[in-house]
Amino acid sequence: MAQPTISFTRPVIALMTDFGLGDGNVGVMKGVIAGIAPDAHIIDITHDVAPQNVPSGAWILATAYRYFPKNTVYICVVDPGVGSTRRAIALHARDWFFVGPDNGLFSYILAEQPVHAAILLSNSTYHLPHISSTFHGRDIFAPVGAYLARGPAEIFYELGTPIDPSTLQPLEVGLATRRGTAVDAYIVHIDNFGNLVTSIPLSMVPELFTVSQVRIIFPREGVVVEQRRRFFADGPADEQAFIYSDSSGYVGIAVRNGNAAKTLGIDYGASVTYVTSA
Amino acid sequence: MAQPTISFTRPVIALMTDFGLGDGNVGVMKGVIAGIAPDAHIIDITHDVAPQNVPSGAWILATAYRYFPKNTVYICVVDPGVGSTRRAIALHARDWFFVGPDNGLFSYILAEQPVHAAILLSNSTYHLPHISSTFHGRDIFAPVGAYLARGPAEIFYELGTPIDPSTLQPLEVGLATRRGTAVDAYIVHIDNFGNLVTSIPLSMVPELFTVSQVRIIFPREGVVVEQRRRFFADGPADEQAFIYSDSSGYVGIAVRNGNAAKTLGIDYGASVTYVTSA
Amino acid sequence: MAQPTISFTRPVIALMTDFGLGDGNVGVMKGVIAGIAPDAHIIDITHDVAPQNVPSGAWILATAYRYFPKNTVYICVVDPGVGSTRRAIALHARDWFFVGPDNGLFSYILAEQPVHAAILLSNSTYHLPHISSTFHGRDIFAPVGAYLARGPAEIFYELGTPIDPSTLQPLEVGLATRRGTAVDAYIVHIDNFGNLVTSIPLSMVPELFTVSQVRIIFPREGVVVEQRRRFFADGPADEQAFIYSDSSGYVGIAVRNGNAAKTLGIDYGASVTYVTSA
Repeated sequence: MAQPTISFTRPVIALMTDFGLGDGNVGVMKGVIAGIAPDAHIIDITHDVAPQNVPSGAWILATAYRYFPKNTVYICVVDPGVGSTRRAIALHARDWFFVGPDNGLFSYILAEQPVHAAILLSNSTYHLPHISSTFHGRDIFAPVGAYLARGPAEIFYELGTPIDPSTLQPLEVGLATRRGTAVDAYIVHIDNFGNLVTSIPLSMVPELFTVSQVRIIFPREGVVVEQRRRFFADGPADEQAFIYSDSSGYVGIAVRNGNAAKTLGIDYGASVTYVTSA
Repeated sequence: MAQPTISFTRPVIALMTDFGLGDGNVGVMKGVIAGIAPDAHIIDITHDVAPQNVPSGAWILATAYRYFPKNTVYICVVDPGVGSTRRAIALHARDWFFVGPDNGLFSYILAEQPVHAAILLSNSTYHLPHISSTFHGRDIFAPVGAYLARGPAEIFYELGTPIDPSTLQPLEVGLATRRGTAVDAYIVHIDNFGNLVTSIPLSMVPELFTVSQVRIIFPREGVVVEQRRRFFADGPADEQAFIYSDSSGYVGIAVRNGNAAKTLGIDYGASVTYVTSA
Repeated sequence: MAQPTISFTRPVIALMTDFGLGDGNVGVMKGVIAGIAPDAHIIDITHDVAPQNVPSGAWILATAYRYFPKNTVYICVVDPGVGSTRRAIALHARDWFFVGPDNGLFSYILAEQPVHAAILLSNSTYHLPHISSTFHGRDIFAPVGAYLARGPAEIFYELGTPIDPSTLQPLEVGLATRRGTAVDAYIVHIDNFGNLVTSIPLSMVPELFTVSQVRIIFPREGVVVEQRRRFFADGPADEQAFIYSDSSGYVGIAVRNGNAAKTLGIDYGASVTYVTSA
C-alpha cells in the first residue's frame, strides 16, 4: 500500500515540553511554527513532563520517537539550564531530527540510533529577532525546528557549527545497569493508571516470563513484587501487585484494578533491583 | 456556501481516550496516524475520560459526534478489557466510522443512528507488525483508523470479518429509564465548572420548563433540587442549585457562581430520580 | 527567507477557552470548524484559563497573539455572561481577527493595536442552526471563526452590524497604573513552575535592572521581594525569591528551584506595589 506523493510535502513536527497547557506557551510555539512552516503537521507528544525533570522527559521521548514518520522534527524542551551556558543543539539521528537543549534529553536516542551529525544552534538567522533568557522554546527551538521541517534538508547544516556528538551531555540517572545476574534500575515513569515503569528494557531480560522466579525489589521502601502476568486481564486478585511487559518496551509493575504507585507507596525515581533464579 | 473541493481530500480523525496527556501515548497514536494518513486532520475529543470508565466515555462521545463532518473516523479507546477476549471493532453508522473496543463505548451511536455494518478487526494487514497486550490504541486502533481515513472507503470491508451489530456489547449503566411519570437516571458527567449532567435527554422531558413543578432527587445523598433556569445568567442567589438544559442535550444541575458537585456533595455515577407534577 | 505561496492558502485558527480538556467541548468546536474550513490549521493557545476568569484570559491572549501569523483568527471563549445580554463580537485589529464575547477579553488588543473595525455577530447565517443558551463557543464563535478563516476576508463585514470599538466593554482589573514613582498592579498569572507574573509591562519599568533598589510589595500578605536576577540560572540560594523579566514581557517573581506561589503564599489576583529608588 504505497504512500501518496503528498506525504512527502507535509512535514511532521513533534513537540515535547514540561510547560503544561495552562500557559499559552505551547500555543505560542505553534504560532511561531505556523508562520514559518505553514504546512507542518504539529503533533504533541506531551507537555506534562514533570517540571524540569530531564530524565523523565528523556524516557518519554524514548518510548515515542520510533512511531513517528521519517523526517519528523522533534522539538523537545525540558530545560532547567535555560539562560545559562548549556548548549542549544540539533541532531540528525537515523531518519529523524531532534532540536533542544544539550542536557541529556536525547541520551536514549544517542544510545539507540546512528547519529549522523550534531549542530550547535549558533546561527541566529534561524532564531526569532529577540531572544529572551527564559523561553528558548519560543525564541530558538520553535523557529529552528520549523525551518528544518520546511526544508530543504540542507538547512540542517546552516543552523550553526557542527559539534562532536561524543561531547554531548550524558543523562545522569535512568539507564539500567547489569550487576551479575541482577539489574539495578529506576522507576522512570508512572502512567495515567498509576502503573510503575522501570528503566529495564524487556530486551535486557528476555527470561522474564520463562524462569521459575523473578523478584523486583524496592530496597528503600521494603517492597518486593514476585507475581508476573502477561495480560492485564489475567491479573491476580484486586490490590495485588504484579510484573508485566509495559507497552513502552520496559518492565512495569501494576496492581489489578488499582493504582500501583499509591497502593505500594512508590514514587518516581525509586531505585529497583531485579533478581532472578533459573 | 459550497465547500471547496479540497474538503474531500482532507480526512478528519477524531480521537477519544482515557490515556491522559501526561504519557506520550496519545502522541504516539498520532505519530502512527501521520505515517499512514499524512493528510488527516487529527482532532482530540478528549483524552481525560475517567480511567477505564466506559459509560463516561460513551456519553462524552454521544455529545460530540454529531458535530463532526461526514466521513469522520472516530478512534475511541477506553478499554479496561485490553488483552482479554473483548473484540476490536469498526462500525459504519450513518455518515461516520467508529473504531475501538467492543465494550459498550458505542452504545449511544447504536441506539441513535442507522448502523450500516460492523466489522471485527481481524485482518492484521492493517495493524502494526507487533501487537502489545496493553496498547491496542497504538498497535491496532490508530493504524486501522488511519487506513480507513486515507481511504478509499472500501477498505472498511477489508478490515476483517463482518459481524452482526446486534451482538455488540451493550452499555450497562447510563441510559435513563422511564418509570410511570418518573425517570430514573444517573449523573454521567461533571463538567469543568462542576455542573452535574444527568443521562436524561431533554427530548425525554419536553415539559421541563412548562410544568408547575419539577424535582430532581438524589435518594442516596438526600438532596433535592427544584429551581429551574433557562439561562445561567438568570440563576438564583449564589450557592443555590438549579436545573438547566445542558448544551449537550441533557438535563443538568448547576450552582450559580459555584461548583454544583462540591456544593451538593454529589459524585459521578450518582443515581437520580426525576419527578414532575402538571 | 520568503514564505512559500502555500502559506496564504492554509488559514490559522487559534483557540483559547476556559473549558478544560475533560469535556468534549473543545473537540466539538474543532469538529464544527473542520466541517466549515477543512484546511484550517487549528492551534490551541490554552483551554485552561481559570474558569470564568476574564482578566486572566485577557492576559494570556495578550502574551500570545503577536506570535501568530498574519490573518490568524482567534476564537476566544471565557464567557461568564453567556446567555445574558452581553454582545458576541468580531474584531479586526492590525493583521488579525478576534471572535468572542464582548466582556473585556480583548482589552489588551484594543489598547495595543490599531482596530480597523468591530462587528456585532448578528447575522445568524454564520451560526449553527440551533443556538443553545450555554455553549456559544460551539454554536456561534466556532462557525463564525471558521467562515472568517475560510474567507474571503470580506465575510468579516457580513457577520453582522458594525459597532463603535469605543463602546466595547473594558476590562476591570489587571492593567498596571502608575502612582508617582510607584506602580500599582496585580498578579495576573501563575505559570506552570509557580512563578508569579505581574501586570507590570517591562516597558513601563525600563530602570528595573539598573537602579540601585527595587522592591515589590504584597501589602495584604506582608511580603517584600528585593533581589533581582536577569537569568534563572543566576538565582540566589534555594527557596529565596527574586524579581525577573518574564518572557511574556511582564515583571515576574520566582523562587530558585522552587514554586514562588507556594513558597510566598501568594495567590492569583494579589495586589502588588512596585517601588524604586534611583
